[in-house]
Amino acid sequence: MKKLMNKVEDFVAEELHGLEAAHPDLLKIDYANSVILRKDAPRKGKVGLVSGGGSGHEPLHGGFVGLGMLDAACAGAVFTSPVPDQMEAATRAVDGGKGVLHIVKNYTGDVLNFQMAADLVADQIKVSSVVVNDDVAVQDSLYTAGRRGVGATVLLEKIAGACAERGGSLDDVTAVAVQVNAQARSMGMALTSAIVPAAGTVNFTIADDEMEIGIGIHGEPGRRRAKLAPVDDIAEMLLTPILDDLPFKRGDDTLVFVNGMGGTPLIELYIAFNSVAKILKGRGVKIARTLVGSYITSLEMAGFSVTLLKLDEKLTGLWDEPVHTPALRWRA
Amino acid sequence: MKKLMNKVEDFVAEELHGLEAAHPDLLKIDYANSVILRKDAPRKGKVGLVSGGGSGHEPLHGGFVGLGMLDAACAGAVFTSPVPDQMEAATRAVDGGKGVLHIVKNYTGDVLNFQMAADLVADQIKVSSVVVNDDVAVQDSLYTAGRRGVGATVLLEKIAGACAERGGSLDDVTAVAVQVNAQARSMGMALTSAIVPAAGTVNFTIADDEMEIGIGIHGEPGRRRAKLAPVDDIAEMLLTPILDDLPFKRGDDTLVFVNGMGGTPLIELYIAFNSVAKILKGRGVKIARTLVGSYITSLEMAGFSVTLLKLDEKLTGLWDEPVHTPALRWRA
Repeated sequence: MKKLMNKVEDFVAEELHGLEAAHPDLLKIDYANSVILRKDAPRKGKVGLVSGGGSGHEPLHGGFVGLGMLDAACAGAVFTSPVPDQMEAATRAVDGGKGVLHIVKNYTGDVLNFQMAADLVADQIKVSSVVVNDDVAVQDSLYTAGRRGVGATVLLEKIAGACAERGGSLDDVTAVAVQVNAQARSMGMALTSAIVPAAGTVNFTIADDEMEIGIGIHGEPGRRRAKLAPVDDIAEMLLTPILDDLPFKRGDDTLVFVNGMGGTPLIELYIAFNSVAKILKGRGVKIARTLVGSYITSLEMAGFSVTLLKLDEKLTGLWDEPVHTPALRWRA
Repeated sequence: MKKLMNKVEDFVAEELHGLEAAHPDLLKIDYANSVILRKDAPRKGKVGLVSGGGSGHEPLHGGFVGLGMLDAACAGAVFTSPVPDQMEAATRAVDGGKGVLHIVKNYTGDVLNFQMAADLVADQIKVSSVVVNDDVAVQDSLYTAGRRGVGATVLLEKIAGACAERGGSLDDVTAVAVQVNAQARSMGMALTSAIVPAAGTVNFTIADDEMEIGIGIHGEPGRRRAKLAPVDDIAEMLLTPILDDLPFKRGDDTLVFVNGMGGTPLIELYIAFNSVAKILKGRGVKIARTLVGSYITSLEMAGFSVTLLKLDEKLTGLWDEPVHTPALRWRA
């Protein structure tokens, strides 16, 4: 195992210290609960957005805390759900009197623990939740009943965050989050495995001439193991199930998100984007907005995922709204 | 070799197509010369900024083309200098009548070829150049007479770009570029090797319990091969030569840039940032601005580098100016 680290048991805590040292203008950390908070939380009169999950997917979720996106992110151990106490602390810390939305990736632990946290605060805080399940690769998986939540989570946190920042009610913010999840589909692939620090060895083995199609973000198996192929062919293997599932139709405006799994360099992501763009052009699906980079990762796993979100005027407008977080930052 | 690619010979060209497909609002591509251009180039009355070098270091340089940074980037083959014709085409394409600055990393091929390009246009266009040589690891190297140019290049392109965007003259922009290079120092390390696509095998071999201290961005050897160590110790090995070289003194304001080499996940970069911040605190060196991410890479090589830039009011103000490129984007 080759990692930039000190002790395995300090892996996540030292990341949180690093985040705070690098972004003291944006973030504050509740170290007792491993919760990354927006510096100015709670914001009175704004719906609070809380997400979280196992660590190892950075910048998800802590890198998305800030103006126009999340108010808090709960950091679990690597690939391990945070506990309800963390989610309760985060929810209380961001409540500005207008309610809190929980953004939950569909993994059994996350779903159960966020529900328990919502129950714990139910007397004092109105909480709604959205469960993200955009991965078309498999119906059930090692960690999931139903589809897994992957790349759409990033887009949903941005768009729902903008709705909250604009002053939307809890119902408004929840509705737009549900809409993003309903209109987004993803699928990913891996060339190599991640190594969980506490285990010290690869999560799965894969031969030098093989790839895993439909992989999850914890290295859980996907649809099939296949021989390594040109990226044009891989893009077809990922996009066809995505396009057919919603389905995306000729003339649809889309946000195309090509995401690196952590160990894949940016030059390869742009090569993959080119493959994706050619297929979409052939199908007549329009690229209206794009995101290219490593935003929901699996430690040092090499590979990529594609997420397509069907846009309308409302979602496009919210995507374009200002955002200022460690990992995403812009102003129109 | 496991890469997201089609044919080796199309590796760079397909990346350029991907860049254009992902950022049609920011970029246009001169495919005949492999030059990435700002969409609105040439800008009348603005000093043009041209950089470039071998590919494989993305987002450097093409990801830094746009408002407030570069006007053009020349993409060579992987780890191979662009030819003078490319640099000449880029220089002519961005000249807005106020002259052009060449930003050159100190590698023998880049330096010679940019000089030839400047000579080729000398009758029509006023060209000045800055040679970046911030790497304190080695005095000469496989590809260099004198120090190598590494992480400071990113900071210099941002700061000189802001000076040009504000309307600075060629002398102004050159002077601030020279100042950034003079006040910045870097050093890097690697855990694993990169694989050049055309070679198909690792650039160098390194054991499972070893690391290379002082590595260059082409995998060229550094100061020494050492046993893998805790990142706190590695940060000390990189920072001590950096701090002693300028030297950086107690009370100095600095921009701290922790850069991933391409295959290192973001969680590890924040852990490394924490180590760096602790050392700087101990020395009384102040962190005024930060940049954390993979911005000057070596394909899929795992590892990181640290760049420290001594700030003054002028450099800080230019760093904070608006930028809108594929890889860096903000507005005050």
